[in-house]
Amino acid sequence: MNQYALLHTPDSRYCFAVGKNEIVIRLRAAKEDENMRVFLVYGPKYQFQVEQLEVEMTAHYEDNLYKYYEKRLQLDDVRLAYIFRIEEDGEKYYYSEDGLTKEYSFPEAFYNFFQMPYINENDRIETVDWMRGAIFYQIFVDRFRVGNTDKDISYVNMRWGEKPTPKSFAGGDIRGIIEKLDYLEDLGVNAIYLTPIFLSKSNHKYDIEDYKKIDPMFGTLDDFKELVENAHARNMKIVLDAVFNHCSMKMDKFQDVLQKGRLSKYYDWFLIHGDKPDPEKMNYECFAACNYMPKLNTANEEVQEFLLDIALYWIREADIDGWRLDVSDEVSHDFWRRFRREVKAQKEDCVIIGENWHDAYSYLMGDQYDSIMNYAFTKACLDYFARGNFHAKEMAEKLNAILMRNTAPVNHMMLNLLDSHDTHRFYTEVGKDKKKLLCALALEIVYPGATCLYYGTEICMEGGYDPDSRRCFNWNHEEWDMDFFHEVQELLKLKKKDILRYGIVRVSANEDVLCIERRLDRTRFILKINLSEQECDGVEPEGYKVIEEVMS
Amino acid sequence: MNQYALLHTPDSRYCFAVGKNEIVIRLRAAKEDENMRVFLVYGPKYQFQVEQLEVEMTAHYEDNLYKYYEKRLQLDDVRLAYIFRIEEDGEKYYYSEDGLTKEYSFPEAFYNFFQMPYINENDRIETVDWMRGAIFYQIFVDRFRVGNTDKDISYVNMRWGEKPTPKSFAGGDIRGIIEKLDYLEDLGVNAIYLTPIFLSKSNHKYDIEDYKKIDPMFGTLDDFKELVENAHARNMKIVLDAVFNHCSMKMDKFQDVLQKGRLSKYYDWFLIHGDKPDPEKMNYECFAACNYMPKLNTANEEVQEFLLDIALYWIREADIDGWRLDVSDEVSHDFWRRFRREVKAQKEDCVIIGENWHDAYSYLMGDQYDSIMNYAFTKACLDYFARGNFHAKEMAEKLNAILMRNTAPVNHMMLNLLDSHDTHRFYTEVGKDKKKLLCALALEIVYPGATCLYYGTEICMEGGYDPDSRRCFNWNHEEWDMDFFHEVQELLKLKKKDILRYGIVRVSANEDVLCIERRLDRTRFILKINLSEQECDGVEPEGYKVIEEVMS
Repeated sequence: MNQYALLHTPDSRYCFAVGKNEIVIRLRAAKEDENMRVFLVYGPKYQFQVEQLEVEMTAHYEDNLYKYYEKRLQLDDVRLAYIFRIEEDGEKYYYSEDGLTKEYSFPEAFYNFFQMPYINENDRIETVDWMRGAIFYQIFVDRFRVGNTDKDISYVNMRWGEKPTPKSFAGGDIRGIIEKLDYLEDLGVNAIYLTPIFLSKSNHKYDIEDYKKIDPMFGTLDDFKELVENAHARNMKIVLDAVFNHCSMKMDKFQDVLQKGRLSKYYDWFLIHGDKPDPEKMNYECFAACNYMPKLNTANEEVQEFLLDIALYWIREADIDGWRLDVSDEVSHDFWRRFRREVKAQKEDCVIIGENWHDAYSYLMGDQYDSIMNYAFTKACLDYFARGNFHAKEMAEKLNAILMRNTAPVNHMMLNLLDSHDTHRFYTEVGKDKKKLLCALALEIVYPGATCLYYGTEICMEGGYDPDSRRCFNWNHEEWDMDFFHEVQELLKLKKKDILRYGIVRVSANEDVLCIERRLDRTRFILKINLSEQECDGVEPEGYKVIEEVMS
Repeated sequence: MNQYALLHTPDSRYCFAVGKNEIVIRLRAAKEDENMRVFLVYGPKYQFQVEQLEVEMTAHYEDNLYKYYEKRLQLDDVRLAYIFRIEEDGEKYYYSEDGLTKEYSFPEAFYNFFQMPYINENDRIETVDWMRGAIFYQIFVDRFRVGNTDKDISYVNMRWGEKPTPKSFAGGDIRGIIEKLDYLEDLGVNAIYLTPIFLSKSNHKYDIEDYKKIDPMFGTLDDFKELVENAHARNMKIVLDAVFNHCSMKMDKFQDVLQKGRLSKYYDWFLIHGDKPDPEKMNYECFAACNYMPKLNTANEEVQEFLLDIALYWIREADIDGWRLDVSDEVSHDFWRRFRREVKAQKEDCVIIGENWHDAYSYLMGDQYDSIMNYAFTKACLDYFARGNFHAKEMAEKLNAILMRNTAPVNHMMLNLLDSHDTHRFYTEVGKDKKKLLCALALEIVYPGATCLYYGTEICMEGGYDPDSRRCFNWNHEEWDMDFFHEVQELLKLKKKDILRYGIVRVSANEDVLCIERRLDRTRFILKINLSEQECDGVEPEGYKVIEEVMS
């Protein structure tokens, strides 16, 4: 047995509650250990020394090195003690906090069993239910649709459809989105994520001057309220972008510090090295190397309150359904914990989605975010669909590895995406291969979590890196590929199925075919993707197939 | 290379800040891979794609399977991106979020580097400085010393020195402790941990009726204040026991629920299955299976406030220096987070020590406790000194494994102990072998963290499991082994050395000799323990030796 591969950590992604008295326990082992059998030996914490139950575990997930045994347990006493018993080639081992041993002393178990000490209601990770079936549409507001033709358009400096530069303004606005809610509903969208809409000089508005004011380029508070109301009337959710890592240097607080230096009462709102911030010298902390985006000091109680007030204001005032957190990994855990407490107290099913490009486990254990933008999924899709780095087997392994990064309740809330305003467009990445894009969309819909479409994906919009991925939406229907459009519509409809929202998931590969299976009660839903040039397992070349079957 | 053994997790015990712009990075690998060289490839997050620095890492810790490479880095930009480069037998590999690969694409690094996204001040784990050099003395109050001879002693039902039963009362009190502060100071103690002292019917007082009242058996509020003042005058800290998992069924709130059931405003303070708690049926959550200790519902806001008020009251009123948290692993993380915030706001260096017998990593990342009672250390000492389960090498491996469970700032706050009111006495466990007990104490002092002596260890008190480990202190000096006592005194003095408080630690074994080394600047402090029956490496049989040397 490869004992180096064994891994279990209590109170973690390897042991977590999924209900009032239900838990999931995972054990990692080496994939190569084929003759291994794993048994969970368990019992109520205060009786474990004298009496244990036993149940065999099954390996449900495999990545490139490891397999993951998993068991879902219903408990009478929610204080659980457990260890693992492993059998291989006639040998018997125990795996406890003391590692792998040939013997295990149950009378001294109190020192080294694993445990779920108690399932406390306020520690349980709850899935925001609507995220399971959400089809998000991400809108970069300046480029989606001009709705208000009466406004002052003196800031618009490009013709709709021209190639954008970093400083282009095309005139898109909130009224444009309101106008197109029918369109989005018809497409199959039930949630909209808007990049920032608050007062800001830039087209992207990630440098915010006033967090409580809708930017006049985009509209008014009334426009925004109307958008939310109309969306809600369609059972559609609205998620906004919380740019809380940094602000614009034009925000009044930073301006005050620019003028007064240490004498400003906002000096400690920022992280300044010296008596006065100097944009030339950049002697203060910023986002990346952008001197016009000073970093906010979220260790400062006043800053915390300032930001929390904004977060709650938009829920209270406009009834938004979630916050996507910009550069959230650079903001303090301490702040996000407080943010969650207050946001969830205001609106329980308000979703919190971090922009963490990396393993965000330390933010996803129930005390901070619900979810992240799943860029690990994006990268896997690039490797599989665009780069040819992965065959079906490697893709299956990677998709399993991503699932094993987090607890099950979190996996059902992940915001899966193929591209965004911060990447190349996926359609461009796959060399404008529509069949590959459809296969990727099918995967995104069948894989657990929410699906996020970047605006224009449904009409095969192209684009390289920023600003090219932020082109104007092409409203000339005559230039659309309607076959493609209708196929996207059909795919999105699948997400309505309970099995894709609640079913367990199994990912595997059969030669050239990637296979995503969901199971719920007696129903199986299977997606098969074949990227090869031959038909394989009944799936056409560069094609996909969905099968739904009821088992007896 | 055994790639199954490789492990690194960002924002965890494998990567953590130890200062404003200083971090520690660890990588786990297989011990057997002797020809392996590991390099940290790193750079500021937003430049990593184009430019990287590189530094070799060293393996400082070895357990039974793994070795742990570690590097402490000073940063200019506190947003760090990094991966590992590994060389073995002429082959070159990279280890990133995508695992071990032969190639690594720096242009696409943003998807899969590891990172320390930003060192936020309010996320940093700070070491409570006095814990590094603390010598705790744990007192079970009823059995240490009778000080007040004027009190009503009608509750006392045993003669001092008799063998205690679970229901014995011997009459020990706070005044007795005040009387013996000179004694404790002379012994070398600089912190006292008292088992509970609040109103309660039992001798142990873990079933509390009134958390703001000192039990009259033990004294008055004035007595307790006098104890703290006199201790502080000696630079001695006082830590109390926070029994917040459960209370006594006699507490007024539970009594109210017993009478009124669901109609009581305290019904939701407890976890009751049914309309009314029934002690006969035990239809409510309790500590263990003790119906007289109902569990408190810390998901209830009012309960949180009730308990926090108690925690702050004793800091404010009596200026205590810390809380030891009873059955803390069964209480919600959510509550401990709030507890930490409020306790630290009141008194920054007030220490928070959990009673977690198991790997408590999920409580020790800076948002909940500072420390735990280090029962894993206790178990290792039992295996090595008492049971003969470990040779020196296995003990070194286990001590390294325990160090690698947590971050460095936490290791310096661990409450290391050989025994407590919840175990057999260590002296009894080692078969009354004083030389072994002295070796174990030497280890406890030289190993990083605070040292905790259970009352009477210095006079070789014996005792099996509760109630036998709670015997009365023997104040008849004529029966003491003064040679032993003086040697304990000498050992405790060592903890005053800066090197034992701030030095880095290396644990190894040389044949039969266990070797604990601390290093600070140019000084090395070495403890060698030889449990064999022959002299070995200059250490006498069943003996220890300390060496302090200055390196050129």
